[in-house]
Amino acid sequence: MTPDFPIGPVLSALDVGGIGLFAATGAVAAARAKQTLVTFAFFALATGAGGGTVRDLLIGAPVFWVADSRPLIACLVIALFVWITPAKLWRGKALDWLDAIGMAAYAVFGAAKALSFGVPPLAAVLMGIFTACLGGIIRDILAGEPSIILRPELYVTAAALAAALFVGLTLLGVMLPIAAGLSALAGFTLRALAIWKGLALPTYRGG
Amino acid sequence: MTPDFPIGPVLSALDVGGIGLFAATGAVAAARAKQTLVTFAFFALATGAGGGTVRDLLIGAPVFWVADSRPLIACLVIALFVWITPAKLWRGKALDWLDAIGMAAYAVFGAAKALSFGVPPLAAVLMGIFTACLGGIIRDILAGEPSIILRPELYVTAAALAAALFVGLTLLGVMLPIAAGLSALAGFTLRALAIWKGLALPTYRGG
Amino acid sequence: MTPDFPIGPVLSALDVGGIGLFAATGAVAAARAKQTLVTFAFFALATGAGGGTVRDLLIGAPVFWVADSRPLIACLVIALFVWITPAKLWRGKALDWLDAIGMAAYAVFGAAKALSFGVPPLAAVLMGIFTACLGGIIRDILAGEPSIILRPELYVTAAALAAALFVGLTLLGVMLPIAAGLSALAGFTLRALAIWKGLALPTYRGG
Repeated sequence: MTPDFPIGPVLSALDVGGIGLFAATGAVAAARAKQTLVTFAFFALATGAGGGTVRDLLIGAPVFWVADSRPLIACLVIALFVWITPAKLWRGKALDWLDAIGMAAYAVFGAAKALSFGVPPLAAVLMGIFTACLGGIIRDILAGEPSIILRPELYVTAAALAAALFVGLTLLGVMLPIAAGLSALAGFTLRALAIWKGLALPTYRGG
Repeated sequence: MTPDFPIGPVLSALDVGGIGLFAATGAVAAARAKQTLVTFAFFALATGAGGGTVRDLLIGAPVFWVADSRPLIACLVIALFVWITPAKLWRGKALDWLDAIGMAAYAVFGAAKALSFGVPPLAAVLMGIFTACLGGIIRDILAGEPSIILRPELYVTAAALAAALFVGLTLLGVMLPIAAGLSALAGFTLRALAIWKGLALPTYRGG
Repeated sequence: MTPDFPIGPVLSALDVGGIGLFAATGAVAAARAKQTLVTFAFFALATGAGGGTVRDLLIGAPVFWVADSRPLIACLVIALFVWITPAKLWRGKALDWLDAIGMAAYAVFGAAKALSFGVPPLAAVLMGIFTACLGGIIRDILAGEPSIILRPELYVTAAALAAALFVGLTLLGVMLPIAAGLSALAGFTLRALAIWKGLALPTYRGG
């Protein structure tokens, strides 16, 4: 498949934001696990590029970091940055907020890239969710921590909101930069409520 | 690669059966883990579509649910159905039997799709095994349960029997619906003996 | 993408060595976990072919064992061989040394195959690391053992040395067999020091 419409500057910014912020959360997970610099780099790459890699494989696009090495360099620089900066910078909720911005940005960008390759709406929403959530799931599995997917706290739901809203607004003919900005903001807001107020989905109670 | 022969109605039925039954086992795993509705949907999709997705990536086919959203809709409907029905419906061995039918159906369909893309016999058998087993392995890893692949109980072996028998019969010129039906029945029967009688392979005892 | 230069006999030997040695380490992991012969075969395939499969998917090459069944047959024969030989053959450090040779060979071959498909240098180094390390990571996850990626002992670093040296020497115009031999030797030597002397990277100590 080839792109049906070009990815504009707003979407490119969301892409760079998603990669960089997720790479930082991966490197911090390596720091918490008292790992080596090589593991920092590995975690940064897997978390920053993992979701987008799966998306590209699924939609039949060339994997974004294979032909263009800049995302790789960004992940490596960020891993080194986390390694040399004071650990207290990366403690507490600061990381959750970086992750929230990365998640909202990546959900919209993933859905937009899928649409640009001619993927139908429902699958495009799913690609947005994958792009936003798989990097973090890979990070949690690598670090041996319980995955976000198993916690009732709103996370995947926020990614789904951002991706679905973007696809819906685009189908309605809203201009790309407006649709992208609104959708990322909506997804981030929902996730922010989850971090701030502990907003969560109800869990299964039998029936 | 492009298909060498069309997938007929018998194989399509096996495909739909595999997706739907595995999606149900994924949703039930989410219910057992007291998860949210979003996690139900995620588990249903990963279990129902996971094996076939890996198969399509490996044989270079377009991933089956990207261009056609019906398998996605089916997984989401099944996740909702498991969420709203009484939990006692899904307890005990009932699920093992659904899983057994899904496994046998998917082993044959996976091997048939690989053959239809010109994959040689041994790799086609492996594609049948992957299609049948990977969804369940992904489900077990996500839910934090010990994977079927680590238990001596016959499971992968039953999938291998179904896939190998189908490839062998097809090479011998047996008509597709007959080869598919016989092979799925053989794989299901072997798995049924494992569930019913505890039939298992011998484990390694040193040497 | 299509290959830019042919893979010569030295690289083919590295490829066969990587598959076979990793398949053996996978089968031995199955033996340690007291598994069945079917699980031996599954572990041998996943460990022997896992890294190369991910590499081929990422660079857009046809997956190497789908069109050519010989790697599959090799993995199955090796699984059977480990099953029938005395367990004491496979105890202790012997396995670490086989794994070290496989790792060095596969790091160079993976980078070379990526270069031959027109992948730029940094991404080609990463493909070498993936080819060398992912099979072992998959084996450890399947067997429920802590992954090599989480231990400070030099492993990924040795693969990175081999892959980066090969890509560097090739860019400098060194002949393929010489570049491949030197790089594999350097990677193996670094890994040997890690096995023999416990050579490890420093871990994160806060900052």
